[in-house]
Amino acid sequence: MHKPRIETLNLHPIGRVRTEVCKPPRHWSISEASGTLVVDPEYAPGLRGIKAGDEIVVLFYFDRSPPFTAELLQQQPPHLGGESRGVFATCSPKRPNPLGMSVLKVTAIAHNRLEVMGIDMHDGTPILDIKPHVRA
Amino acid sequence: MHKPRIETLNLHPIGRVRTEVCKPPRHWSISEASGTLVVDPEYAPGLRGIKAGDEIVVLFYFDRSPPFTAELLQQQPPHLGGESRGVFATCSPKRPNPLGMSVLKVTAIAHNRLEVMGIDMHDGTPILDIKPHVRA
Repeated sequence: MHKPRIETLNLHPIGRVRTEVCKPPRHWSISEASGTLVVDPEYAPGLRGIKAGDEIVVLFYFDRSPPFTAELLQQQPPHLGGESRGVFATCSPKRPNPLGMSVLKVTAIAHNRLEVMGIDMHDGTPILDIKPHVRA
Repeated sequence: MHKPRIETLNLHPIGRVRTEVCKPPRHWSISEASGTLVVDPEYAPGLRGIKAGDEIVVLFYFDRSPPFTAELLQQQPPHLGGESRGVFATCSPKRPNPLGMSVLKVTAIAHNRLEVMGIDMHDGTPILDIKPHVRA
C-alpha cells in the first residue's frame, strides 16, 4: 500500500486575479465579467502556448472564506431555494480546502498577463494553477 | 487594493484515491479505469447529494512529483511529439503547485466511499476537494 508522505500541503500563489468588478457573479458558467490574470513574472515562460480563444482552467484560493467548521459540511446554496446539500455537491467558497476552479476564456495574452472572460473571483484572489480546459 | 492576507497556503487531504490500476492512464479524458474515492469519515456528510451517474471534479495533490524548478517551466509532453509548451498549457504533474484535476463519473456511493470511473491517479493519491462538474 502507498504510504502517505504528507499530511499538510504547502502551496503558494503564482499570481493574482485583477478585475474591476465589485460583485463578481456567483459562478463562471453564468459570468460575462472580464479581468486579468497577472502571473508573477518568474512564471511567465510557463504560459507559452496559451493563445487568445483558448479555454483555461484556473485553480485559485478562496482567501476570504471563514475557517471551515463541521456546521459547513451541509449548506443551503442561495440559488437552490433552501435545499440542503453536502459541501462537495456545491460550489460554495466555504470548503475544507478553500480551492476554487473556474473555466475562463482567454481574449488576449501579453508576457505575464492573460486577459480573460468569465471572471467569478474577487480582485486580488491568489491564483494557484492554470491548465488547459479539456472537454471529454 | 486588496491586500494579500496569505503567501503560504496550507491544505490537508480530505481522503485518498484507491485503485488497483498500477499504471494509470495519462489523462481522465481517455481513462476507463475504475477506483474508489475514500473520504475521511468526518467528511462523509459533505457528500450528501452526490449520486450514481453524476460527474464530479476531483482536485488532488501530485504527491510523487519532484520539487518544481525553473527548468520545468517549459516541458515536452510525451504525446505531443517533442513540442515544447509552457507548464500552464500542459497537464503535466510537474507544476509550481502540484495540483491535479480530473473529471470522474460516479458509479455508486455508500457512506464515505464514491466508486468512480475515469481514474488517472495513482493508488494513495491525496484528495483535496470534490465539486460538481458544471458544463457551460
